[in-house]
Amino acid sequence: MDIEAFVRQSEGSWRSMRSAHSLAFQQFEEVLSQITIQSLSPHDLPVIELLAAFDNSYGSPIAPFRMEWRAESDWEPEDPSEVSSGSCVLVPIPKNSREGVLLRSVGYAEREQAIAHYHFLSDGTFILSTRYGQSIAEERIWFVSDHVRCRSSVLRTSEGSGVLQTSFCSEVRRLTL
Amino acid sequence: MDIEAFVRQSEGSWRSMRSAHSLAFQQFEEVLSQITIQSLSPHDLPVIELLAAFDNSYGSPIAPFRMEWRAESDWEPEDPSEVSSGSCVLVPIPKNSREGVLLRSVGYAEREQAIAHYHFLSDGTFILSTRYGQSIAEERIWFVSDHVRCRSSVLRTSEGSGVLQTSFCSEVRRLTL
Repeated sequence: MDIEAFVRQSEGSWRSMRSAHSLAFQQFEEVLSQITIQSLSPHDLPVIELLAAFDNSYGSPIAPFRMEWRAESDWEPEDPSEVSSGSCVLVPIPKNSREGVLLRSVGYAEREQAIAHYHFLSDGTFILSTRYGQSIAEERIWFVSDHVRCRSSVLRTSEGSGVLQTSFCSEVRRLTL
Repeated sequence: MDIEAFVRQSEGSWRSMRSAHSLAFQQFEEVLSQITIQSLSPHDLPVIELLAAFDNSYGSPIAPFRMEWRAESDWEPEDPSEVSSGSCVLVPIPKNSREGVLLRSVGYAEREQAIAHYHFLSDGTFILSTRYGQSIAEERIWFVSDHVRCRSSVLRTSEGSGVLQTSFCSEVRRLTL
């Protein structure tokens, strides 16, 4: 598995079941959402802008993509300001076939531009680590079949090894839109 | 990471938050439970009995252990027959430092004795695959710190690649009993 194959396999529309665990309070959170992953060209404006924001200093991008998400409970929100949806542009810059960096227009743990480091484990599991101001996120994504993928995350404090939250998503490809 | 180090790191008492996702029905299930993992000696009777049940044909056991679990909602059950607790004896038999088989007195997906195959990924993630009569389970366990581990499972039909259920546990070591 390399980043190009991984992005190609991720492309499309997914139905996501997400559970989050707040470890300190032993609280569960559940959300159903729609996720759409769409390839971009390295020449698309949002890609060029993101590269420029990082001074183009990381190398040549491969397989950039846009991810959009929308919680299902927000389909007809009473208060539209509470819609939890958004989109993010992601630009992989491989160092070699197993690892590289991923520029993100919006972070996972904090809403800022971020540089993540990715690598693949021996079975193709994709690991993404991102350091934010207040926290460090580790995400892992693995395909359990062509149309089902799992995604977990662990959020730690950037000082020390305290684990704040974990989450797990089961994502099933929507074969018809 | 080899199986002996993995069992040693797992020993102790854990508070577990578990979320299960039923993919066909998009249903969530949540449970809080206590898990205790305790080393056994290869000479303990339950280990000898389990080896005998499999004709001692897989080789020499290393680091056998017992796992006990009890759902917290069952601490004071109104109907004691509904207590969801149990215990299981597990006997690893390494083929080499990276892989081997694991005999289980009670299965994960079905309540029968089972032979699982395990191996470690490049980052030490433990992968366990078990084929039952009706289903195939893949579990993965990884430590995110000395005292926090994550555990996911995917349950498939034994015919074909249909994914029935996924689950995810966040487990925090109980430092005082």
